[in-house]
Amino acid sequence: MDQSICPRFEKAISIMNKRWTTLIIYQLLEGSQRFCEIESSIGVSGRVLSERLKDLEKEGIVKRSVYDETPVRIEYSLTSKGESLKPALDQIQSWAENWIETSE
Amino acid sequence: MDQSICPRFEKAISIMNKRWTTLIIYQLLEGSQRFCEIESSIGVSGRVLSERLKDLEKEGIVKRSVYDETPVRIEYSLTSKGESLKPALDQIQSWAENWIETSE
Repeated sequence: MDQSICPRFEKAISIMNKRWTTLIIYQLLEGSQRFCEIESSIGVSGRVLSERLKDLEKEGIVKRSVYDETPVRIEYSLTSKGESLKPALDQIQSWAENWIETSE
Repeated sequence: MDQSICPRFEKAISIMNKRWTTLIIYQLLEGSQRFCEIESSIGVSGRVLSERLKDLEKEGIVKRSVYDETPVRIEYSLTSKGESLKPALDQIQSWAENWIETSE
């Protein structure tokens, strides 16, 4: 790896490093979802989920869509940048499954 | 991703998250090297490199071999666990190259 890659690589890792972030991304890989659906699927508190979704929106990884219905429907989905994380997450997951002890 | 994977995944990310760690692993993917070779190749301070190598040894990712010569030769190399990180690092690097701005 070229050393000039380092800051971008570190940025990528720092995004993934926040607790729940990768579970949220995995959840959204299944398709767009409402806030309460993500909340109940991964068992994260509403406060933390709200923070993480805002972070991920800011990073351009998650998109928030507001549908003008009654009541208003709000859905979260992955952008192309978010979906492109799948191969990296899969590889880390696979390494962790093979090499990290559950007891750790 | 199953939620039970989460702690192992987080552990994997936390290992990679330390500054210089991934550069050290990339460097050692080329083969075993002496301390001073790694030091000069990636431009890290001796103090930090020494800390990181100890961390990576403790995680079972790097192996330290002492050869009984005069003067004693000490070389660092990746274990199988360490070498298995390559696909994950490559995927993160590729995502970062495509999606992270250099200015960030």
